Amino acid sequence: MDDLLAQLRAGLPADALITDPDVTASYAHDMASFCAAGAPAVVVLPRTVEQVQHVMRTATALRVPVVPQGARTGLSGAANATDGCIVLSLTKMDRILEISAVDRIAVVEPGVINATLSRAVAEQGLSYPPDPSSWEMCTIGGNIGTASGGLCCVKYGVTAEYVLGLDVVLADGRLMTTGRRTAKGVAGYDLTRLFVGSEGSLGIVVKAVLALRPSPPRQLVLAAEFPSAAAACDAVCRIMERGHTPSLLELMDGTTIRAVNAMAHMGLPETTEALLLAAFDTPDPAADLAAVGELCAAAGATEVVPAEDVAESELLLQARRLSLTALEAVRSATMIDDVCVPRSRLAAMLDGTAAIAEKYGLTIGVCAHAGDGNTHPVVCFDQADPDESRRARESFDEIMALGLELGGTITGEHGVGVLKKDWLARELGPVGLEMQRGIKQTFDPLGLLNPGKLF
Amino acid sequence: MDDLLAQLRAGLPADALITDPDVTASYAHDMASFCAAGAPAVVVLPRTVEQVQHVMRTATALRVPVVPQGARTGLSGAANATDGCIVLSLTKMDRILEISAVDRIAVVEPGVINATLSRAVAEQGLSYPPDPSSWEMCTIGGNIGTASGGLCCVKYGVTAEYVLGLDVVLADGRLMTTGRRTAKGVAGYDLTRLFVGSEGSLGIVVKAVLALRPSPPRQLVLAAEFPSAAAACDAVCRIMERGHTPSLLELMDGTTIRAVNAMAHMGLPETTEALLLAAFDTPDPAADLAAVGELCAAAGATEVVPAEDVAESELLLQARRLSLTALEAVRSATMIDDVCVPRSRLAAMLDGTAAIAEKYGLTIGVCAHAGDGNTHPVVCFDQADPDESRRARESFDEIMALGLELGGTITGEHGVGVLKKDWLARELGPVGLEMQRGIKQTFDPLGLLNPGKLF
Ligand SMILES: Cc1cc2nc3c(=O)[nH]c(=O)nc-3n(C[C@H](O)[C@H](O)[C@H](O)COP(=O)(O)OP(=O)(O)OC[C@H]3O[C@@H](n4cnc5c(N)ncnc54)[C@H](O)[C@@H]3O)c2cc1C
Ligand SMILES: Cc1cc2nc3c(=O)[nH]c(=O)nc-3n(C[C@H](O)[C@H](O)[C@H](O)COP(=O)(O)OP(=O)(O)OC[C@H]3O[C@@H](n4cnc5c(N)ncnc54)[C@H](O)[C@@H]3O)c2cc1C
Repeated sequence: MDDLLAQLRAGLPADALITDPDVTASYAHDMASFCAAGAPAVVVLPRTVEQVQHVMRTATALRVPVVPQGARTGLSGAANATDGCIVLSLTKMDRILEISAVDRIAVVEPGVINATLSRAVAEQGLSYPPDPSSWEMCTIGGNIGTASGGLCCVKYGVTAEYVLGLDVVLADGRLMTTGRRTAKGVAGYDLTRLFVGSEGSLGIVVKAVLALRPSPPRQLVLAAEFPSAAAACDAVCRIMERGHTPSLLELMDGTTIRAVNAMAHMGLPETTEALLLAAFDTPDPAADLAAVGELCAAAGATEVVPAEDVAESELLLQARRLSLTALEAVRSATMIDDVCVPRSRLAAMLDGTAAIAEKYGLTIGVCAHAGDGNTHPVVCFDQADPDESRRARESFDEIMALGLELGGTITGEHGVGVLKKDWLARELGPVGLEMQRGIKQTFDPLGLLNPGKLF
Repeated sequence: MDDLLAQLRAGLPADALITDPDVTASYAHDMASFCAAGAPAVVVLPRTVEQVQHVMRTATALRVPVVPQGARTGLSGAANATDGCIVLSLTKMDRILEISAVDRIAVVEPGVINATLSRAVAEQGLSYPPDPSSWEMCTIGGNIGTASGGLCCVKYGVTAEYVLGLDVVLADGRLMTTGRRTAKGVAGYDLTRLFVGSEGSLGIVVKAVLALRPSPPRQLVLAAEFPSAAAACDAVCRIMERGHTPSLLELMDGTTIRAVNAMAHMGLPETTEALLLAAFDTPDPAADLAAVGELCAAAGATEVVPAEDVAESELLLQARRLSLTALEAVRSATMIDDVCVPRSRLAAMLDGTAAIAEKYGLTIGVCAHAGDGNTHPVVCFDQADPDESRRARESFDEIMALGLELGGTITGEHGVGVLKKDWLARELGPVGLEMQRGIKQTFDPLGLLNPGKLF
């Protein structure tokens, strides 16, 4: 340990190291419940690529595990410390290095906050679409680590589609560049994509070339109330089947609506069983909303209310973005599922989740990126009650089993971390798992990078 | 050899094997010049996954290399046979298994022709965007193998963005499923993307889940004539900088135009130095074309002619799609570069290519997916003339060097194959190359899959 600190200090400024156990303990875990976290030996906050390389060289020399961290807003324990590890927080590497409107790219360090980048590119008439609801806090490095999604993905796709190239410090401290600055490129295996969603287990992202888009027109939102979740899901299917391209298509169930109202007094309709939010950023959003409103009505919506203006639209989105946080206030803790199913199975997923809540006698609120079939069943429970905690864990698992049964995946955007390790093996099967382990072995033969995550 | 045939026959119907050397020789190579090709021992045309597994098990047992093939329209020798290999042609596995408008996916076997799929999904109001100019011939398996692009990529992206999940037969005959049927998913490393563009070197794709989009409105095309390639490239930059989203943005230089006219009598303007084709499939394409026309004029266009209707638009696209074929008729052979540069460096790329043509005394026509910065300098030469052939190869290489110098990649969409192996190593650098080789080793420890390609 003294050796570790001495060697780290040799290549780092004094203020880049934190060893005070009270402070290092605050870096121990992300925002997931139920995930084991150890006590870091030291937290390092590098400002340069060379400093990151020094950390990794030291870690390799001394065989010390390294846990990369962004803002620790993750929901699967993927950024949780292990005992005696180096926590490598990239939050101080937060410069936007370049924005080009002609090439439609931004070059950034990993610690840039998602919302900071979004605002910077907006000033130049550009947009960086991926928008997790945590966008005011989370970092681009963390977004890349988890391959995160958001509200706009139904039209604009997920983080993976916006990462063109990376600079990565490997486990042994060597620097590798992947990908490109160009719109297209197929030179060799796609290592860039391999890193997106790799949860810090293959290398440390120290720079990213991101694709940008022109800013879309401001979107207008419509809210539709349904007497059942199934009816709302049916509307989702009809909207997509008819070839509409909403800029978002989100669902909040009754439990979620009431939780949001309780927290933020937003005046959402308390009695409805499901609220669907649809938006368009097309040249004529009102016309598109009218067409979608009709499909909602045909699917059984009891109310269809287009937002009057951009401000009202923004309020509805704010309600949706608050969902996870609001559900946390229902009991003392939550476990957040992230099952994504084919859109055609969305109703079965929501009905099945309600049955699981019933069976275990728990409150499970569901919000969903419905257009993508990506549901977030939020299991609410009291951590102080061991039996309730056990039921929470069991229902959390049963929801993933249901997702797989319906042809879905255990994680649409939050990742595997430590929370869903067993389930990853189930989803991938033995051959897939063996190949994944082979890849890990290629990049990190000593197993130092974020050990115990994924598999 | 007898052993090989006997073991193959044990698990394959008689008509799935070709051993007649005259016929097997016709499977020896794809459409690239200058690429070594060996004589296959046998050509196998399986119809089922089990048959593919049998072939790979046999190959592994007997240590015989296997070269997967689609339609052999590749332009880098990536499907070329090696001496004594099994050519594994997937062309008979050509069923479309499923099309879903609600889930916006198609599930296909690898031998389905790109155009066949496009037409089938169009009947249901859907589109499969990736459209290489060879789309009437090439297979989805080959498109996945090369990560191919096309005209529509500037708006809709490349093949990689439409592959959601794969069934792959590994080198040892085991079946692995990657990815998903859902719109999103981040369970483990992205093996699906790793396979896209892997040129048959990691496994045999036997099934693919592809993402579809709603059919866009029919596009309208505008043609603009420029006094220089640089002026046309400048227009491209202005169009993208202003936030336009053309459904294609293509460039043909004077040499290409004259070659197309000579072959197909299309009446393109013979005297212009660069023709830019821009298209929009927006709700009001005429308005978008008018705005783009103004930007072209401001960049120096001498003529700006919007197509009157869809038929006229289709004619212009046909001219563009004929470019490579037409340039082949200029001399006895061609070498087709595929350098992609940041859009802002497009003019430098085209001017530099002209200087290289001048230096080597060769005809080099350029057509380009200009909106993506993806150029195809086509080096025309007489194969019977050794000195001209040498100059062709040198200029071909010098064009790649220029591309790298300008911050680009040696291949935007055609892949590496055997033609650009040395250049791949230069582009990736030693660390990247080592990691790529590690991945190859994980999937194909005996090195049986498409040996000698990529690196
Ligand atoms: C209220 C709330 C709402 C949320 N909404 C969404 C949502 O809509 N969509 C969604 O997808 N997620 C959502 N999340 C989850 C989370 O915000 C995202 O996963 C986010 O991408 C994590 O970013 P971070 O900077 O906090 O990363 P962290 O949590 O710190 O790390 C995430 C992973 O990335 C790795 N990592 C971080 N930086 C690097 C680096 N530089 N190099 C290598 N690996 C690195 C870590 O090791 C870890 O495995 C939400 C979370 C909260 C709390
Ligand atoms: C006139 C012309 C125009 C072209 N225009 C374009 C263009 O606009 N854009 C573009 O990107 N390309 C273009 N190409 C190149 C070529 O058509 C594409 O690369 C196409 O994707 C190749 O498909 P294929 O079926 O012919 O594959 P092949 O050439 O047979 O194989 C290509 C690669 O994929 C591998 N492979 C094939 N099937 C499988 C499988 N089932 N499993 C694993 N590996 C497999 C092969 O081993 C090989 O490495 C053009 C070619 C021609 C001749």
